Amino acid sequence: MTMRVVAFGGGHGLSASLRALRRCAPKLDLDITAVVTVGDDGGSSGRLRAERGGLPPGDLRQALVALAGDHPATRRSAGLFQHRFAEVPGNGSGDGLAGHAVGNLVLCGLMELLGDPVAALEHAGAMLGAVGRVLPMSCQPVGIEAQVRGADPDRPDEVRTITGQHQVAVTTGRVESLRLTPAAPEACPEAVEAIGAADWLIFGPGSWYTSVLPHLLVPQLADAIVSSPARRLVTLNLAAEKETLRLSVADHLAALSWYLPELKVDHVLADATAVGDPEPVERAAESLGARLVLAPVAVPDGTPRHDPAALGAALVPVLGADR
Amino acid sequence: MTMRVVAFGGGHGLSASLRALRRCAPKLDLDITAVVTVGDDGGSSGRLRAERGGLPPGDLRQALVALAGDHPATRRSAGLFQHRFAEVPGNGSGDGLAGHAVGNLVLCGLMELLGDPVAALEHAGAMLGAVGRVLPMSCQPVGIEAQVRGADPDRPDEVRTITGQHQVAVTTGRVESLRLTPAAPEACPEAVEAIGAADWLIFGPGSWYTSVLPHLLVPQLADAIVSSPARRLVTLNLAAEKETLRLSVADHLAALSWYLPELKVDHVLADATAVGDPEPVERAAESLGARLVLAPVAVPDGTPRHDPAALGAALVPVLGADR
Repeated sequence: MTMRVVAFGGGHGLSASLRALRRCAPKLDLDITAVVTVGDDGGSSGRLRAERGGLPPGDLRQALVALAGDHPATRRSAGLFQHRFAEVPGNGSGDGLAGHAVGNLVLCGLMELLGDPVAALEHAGAMLGAVGRVLPMSCQPVGIEAQVRGADPDRPDEVRTITGQHQVAVTTGRVESLRLTPAAPEACPEAVEAIGAADWLIFGPGSWYTSVLPHLLVPQLADAIVSSPARRLVTLNLAAEKETLRLSVADHLAALSWYLPELKVDHVLADATAVGDPEPVERAAESLGARLVLAPVAVPDGTPRHDPAALGAALVPVLGADR
Repeated sequence: MTMRVVAFGGGHGLSASLRALRRCAPKLDLDITAVVTVGDDGGSSGRLRAERGGLPPGDLRQALVALAGDHPATRRSAGLFQHRFAEVPGNGSGDGLAGHAVGNLVLCGLMELLGDPVAALEHAGAMLGAVGRVLPMSCQPVGIEAQVRGADPDRPDEVRTITGQHQVAVTTGRVESLRLTPAAPEACPEAVEAIGAADWLIFGPGSWYTSVLPHLLVPQLADAIVSSPARRLVTLNLAAEKETLRLSVADHLAALSWYLPELKVDHVLADATAVGDPEPVERAAESLGARLVLAPVAVPDGTPRHDPAALGAALVPVLGADR
């Protein structure tokens, strides 16, 4: 029987999750839906969003590419989507293409042409032979804003407002609170529907404040997540990022409850080397109703990146277990 | 038995020819190859060529789109290729995307990624489910240069050098001679091969100096055309364009001989309304070895554009006739 999985996130973390899920897909007959943050305001996506007003395409593109089919032609199309136009030597101001990934321009063009991000993503998915579906968390771009203590290292106690996903992602201060602008964006209806019909909801890995938590701040998504009959899994990160330097592994789990107190979780998946002493993490997992599962999910070379094959192997027994 | 057709040209003329050919394809079992000029230096193509150095993609894109498959998904991808990014209101200098067709950016990215225009066009053709193949006349961009008499209307007898396809296409002077820069560009080997294996070679319709004649100036293409066992058809234009305002219909045929004296043609296809008195055109056709075939091939509304269905209907008996 098909098992419907919804994976939440953005950027590299979601990409790792999706690459792992597609490796489980044949064993577990998975139907994969990615629900992607739309808060990016940096780089190519930020420029397209600022200049053309649609959804920032970069995280959507990464998710599509992670799900691209294995046929050589679709692999080549995925390579095309990821191809980034280089700076033109000797052209200081750039030609406007420099830095843009071709896939971002394709998504931007499709959204303009079809007037509907969901239809645009469906078409782009077909272009890539995607083995799953990619949806935005909202059909309108959102802003991310955080109250951050010690954003300025010289003023460790000062709390200031940091605006924009990119700035929040690179702050080394402590994020004390996070909000979206607008505060209550409309959820993508297809995402709400997918959550309601899911067997599993998967959160993380990824930049906690800028890719994982934003979904919980969209009221209709939060409601759908809480009321879904699906089981819930959290995959923890392998290392702290700038924005979460001051957050322990257990704090990551506490943050989920902080932003969505009704959230119950069934399993927390982590790598033992990233967890260190498991006891506080086990306690934090228990307070969400979850059991901590430790498995080696990092790439073998020691860099803090999830290995899709290892993560997939760790997911199979968790997702496949009887309720 | 499959009939191999090679159509030469660029821009709208080649597009009309290809759209007509694909309508004959089921009746005649055609295998279609387009060989496209690479001299464009205007608009989106000209900017990409100047800034990124690859082949100007616009004429190649038009040919691909003309051959795009009929499936709704490939029709939508063709629409995406043709979608042009609009000017951003209030952004005087533009964001660098304004004016670019998405397909031009896709082709530019594919050529950068694969390092080979033929492989890039093959992949783009697959993305569009193209019912035929698109090749550049040369894998290096070329320049077009003309000696033009009376380019300045105030000096009707002065001959000056006009440089660049775009400038030649819009000159209202009389083109006295045409050349490529470099003068003898390397032909695309796959185009030479296709010409050698063809059953039919089709020239025109299209901008005579900037889309039809340039192929005859590439030495290896000219040799291949002259020595090919294929039959040859010239489809004449429906109205003069700026660059050929001073050229009669018969002059168009004479220009082919002028630039490739060894060229022999089997049929010249024209619309009676565009030809007027057929006698001089018949004589010009005969001097190429060709028979003039008159058929109504224009769109019904009176604008001088070929109707793909009518042109296709006119081509079937010509291409299908026994030798």
